Amino acid sequence: MTQPLASVQWDKELDQLILIDQTRLPRHIEYLFIRTIEESWEAIKSLQVRGAPAIGMTAAYGLYLGIRHAQNASRRELEQLITEQASYLASSRPTAINLVWALERIKTKAFNHPEISPPELIQLVLEEARLIQQEDENVCRSIGEHALTLFEDGIGVLTHCNAGSLATARYGTATAPFYLAQEKGWNIKVYADETRPVLQGSRLTAFELQQAGIDVTLICDNMAASVMQKGWIQAVIVGTDRVAANGDVANKIGTYGLAVLAKAHNIPFYVAAPLSSIDLNTEQGADIPIEEREGTEITHISEIPVAPAGIQTFNPAFDVTPSHLVTAIITEKGIVRGNYKQGLAELFQNHNIVELQINEAK
Amino acid sequence: MTQPLASVQWDKELDQLILIDQTRLPRHIEYLFIRTIEESWEAIKSLQVRGAPAIGMTAAYGLYLGIRHAQNASRRELEQLITEQASYLASSRPTAINLVWALERIKTKAFNHPEISPPELIQLVLEEARLIQQEDENVCRSIGEHALTLFEDGIGVLTHCNAGSLATARYGTATAPFYLAQEKGWNIKVYADETRPVLQGSRLTAFELQQAGIDVTLICDNMAASVMQKGWIQAVIVGTDRVAANGDVANKIGTYGLAVLAKAHNIPFYVAAPLSSIDLNTEQGADIPIEEREGTEITHISEIPVAPAGIQTFNPAFDVTPSHLVTAIITEKGIVRGNYKQGLAELFQNHNIVELQINEAK
Repeated sequence: MTQPLASVQWDKELDQLILIDQTRLPRHIEYLFIRTIEESWEAIKSLQVRGAPAIGMTAAYGLYLGIRHAQNASRRELEQLITEQASYLASSRPTAINLVWALERIKTKAFNHPEISPPELIQLVLEEARLIQQEDENVCRSIGEHALTLFEDGIGVLTHCNAGSLATARYGTATAPFYLAQEKGWNIKVYADETRPVLQGSRLTAFELQQAGIDVTLICDNMAASVMQKGWIQAVIVGTDRVAANGDVANKIGTYGLAVLAKAHNIPFYVAAPLSSIDLNTEQGADIPIEEREGTEITHISEIPVAPAGIQTFNPAFDVTPSHLVTAIITEKGIVRGNYKQGLAELFQNHNIVELQINEAK
Repeated sequence: MTQPLASVQWDKELDQLILIDQTRLPRHIEYLFIRTIEESWEAIKSLQVRGAPAIGMTAAYGLYLGIRHAQNASRRELEQLITEQASYLASSRPTAINLVWALERIKTKAFNHPEISPPELIQLVLEEARLIQQEDENVCRSIGEHALTLFEDGIGVLTHCNAGSLATARYGTATAPFYLAQEKGWNIKVYADETRPVLQGSRLTAFELQQAGIDVTLICDNMAASVMQKGWIQAVIVGTDRVAANGDVANKIGTYGLAVLAKAHNIPFYVAAPLSSIDLNTEQGADIPIEEREGTEITHISEIPVAPAGIQTFNPAFDVTPSHLVTAIITEKGIVRGNYKQGLAELFQNHNIVELQINEAK
C-alpha cells in the first residue's frame, strides 16, 4: 500500500527539511532539500510549499535551520536571533495566518524556558516544530476516523478542491477518510471535481489520490450533478476555510452548488473541519468576507488565453453554504449535526485551543 | 447597435461565400472567402464552420459553387453533377445530420423541376441555399420573440454552452432573446458559463455577445449557484440537442445541474428548441444515447496538460434534464409548458416539418 505523499518531511539523519516542490505538480515530483532558513523562506514565498498547515510546518523547521549554528551564542543573543529569524520567515507570506501562528507558538515555548542552555533551546525549537507536525497529523487522522464512521466499503464519494495530504502533515482533512479507508482495505470510489478556475482538484487531489493508489476519477465541476443523477455518489465531503458559529461553511467556490445538488439527490453533505477552522467569533456565513480574484484566472489557463480579450468576469474564490444544507461537520473532536450553534460551541469547552484562526489549506 | 456576428454570409456581388473562421476565435476574427466546392468541403471538415445550421448552409452554398460553371452542360449531365457534388460535400462530416438534410432538400427541389434549363437550375440551387439560410434566421428570430415575452428589461439571465449566432444563420436559439432585447433597447445582463471541458461558453457565447455589445459576464460553471444565491439571475435559458416527446431535454453537460439549481432558487428554467430538435420518436430522455468523449478534453487545455498523467476521467458530452425541471420549451411556433407530451405533439400538427432530426449546434 502506498503512503499519502508527504509534502513536508523532516530528515533526522541529515538534519534537513525535505519538501515536495508543489509548483512542479502534477507532471513532475521533485523534492527540495532545505538546509537554510533562506531556502525555507524562498520555498514558502514561491509557493513551492502551499496549504496553511504545510506552510506553518515549513516555517517552524525553517526557524530551527536559522538558529541551529548558534550553539555558542549567549542565551540573550539566541533569543534575539529567534525573534529576528521569526520575523524574517513571517515576511515570506504576510497573510498566511498559520505561518505566524506556528512561529509565535515556538517563540512562546522557547521564551518560557529561561532555565535551559542555548544548545538545549535550539533542540527545543526543533522538537516544537516536530510537535506541530505531529499534532497536525493527529488532527487529520482523527477527522478521518470520525468521517469513516459515516462511510462504508464500496461507496462513491465526491470531493471538491484540495483539502488533502499535500496541504497538511499527512492525510489531509476531507481526504483523510479516503486514506484511512484504504488502510482498512475498503474500496471507496472517489470523484474529484477539477475545481475551476485554479484546478486544485485535477492538479492536487486527483494527483495525490492517484499517487496513493486510491480509485479516483476526475470530472469537470459541471458533471457533479450527472454522477449524482446516475446514483454513483453516496456522500459528498469537502474541506473548509472557515465555519461560522451557526454552522455556515465558507469553502472554495462551487461548494455551495454541490450542497444544493446533494440535497436534491438525498446525498449527505459532509464538511471536514479541524477546530482551527471553526470561528465562534463569526456569527454567520454572511459575515465572512469573500475574496474576489483576478478574471485572468478564468480567461487564461497556463497563461494561454481561452476567452475573448477584455471580457467581463466574476471570480469569487469562495462561497458560503448555509448550515441547513450541511448534514454533518466532522472535527478531530467528533461529529456535529443538527444544532450547530450549540454543538460547535461545546467542542471548545474543556479544550485548550489556540485562539488564532487558522485557515484550511486551499 | 452592433449586429450579431454572421458566421455564414452570401456575397451576392462577388458570387462567393464568406465564413468566419471559427477555429481562430475568440482571439482572431478572420474571414474566409469561399469560391469553390473544395474550399467549402475543407471549411466544414476542418471545423472552420461549426454548428448544425451553419454547416447545412455552408454545404448548400458549396453545392452551388460546385455546379455554377456547368452552364453549358445538358440537363442530364447537370443532375449527375449535382448528385456527385452533394455526395462529395456530405463526406466532409458524415455524422452531421443537418449537412445531409440541406443537400437532400436542394436535390429534391432541383429534380422536381425538370422543365427548367441548366442555367435556371443552377440559379434555383442558389435560391434554395438562400432560402435555407433565411428560414433558419426566421426560426431563430421567432424563438427569440417568444422567449422575450418571458423576460423583462433589466433582468439577469444565465446561459450555458453556445446555442448562438455563430452556429446559426443569425440570432442563435438560446441567444436570440438577448439580441432582440438589445434591438428593443432593453438591458439584459447575461451570465455565460464557460462550459467545461470544451469552453464553448467562453470561446463562443461570451465572444459573440461581447462583439454585439451585449452586457455579458463570464463565470466558471461552478459559480452558477453563487450568482443565483446572490439574486442576480431571474431566468436560465439554454439550447438543446434533442427534446424527447415527454419534454425531457438533452443538452451540453452541466445543463441538468443548472436546472436543479434553478429550481432550488425558484428561477425559471427555459429551453430554446427549434422544432427540428424535437424528436417525437424518442419517448423519453433515458432513450437518448449520451456520447462519452476522450478524457484528454478534461486533462489538457490547448494541448497543455493540467491533470496528472494517466488519471481516470468521466467525460459525458451531454446530460438529460427531466421535463419536471423545465419551466417552458420555447419553439418558433410558440411556448409549451406543463403537459409536454401533448403540447409538443400539437406543435407538429398542421405543420409541414422535414422528418429528419436536426441537432442543435454545439
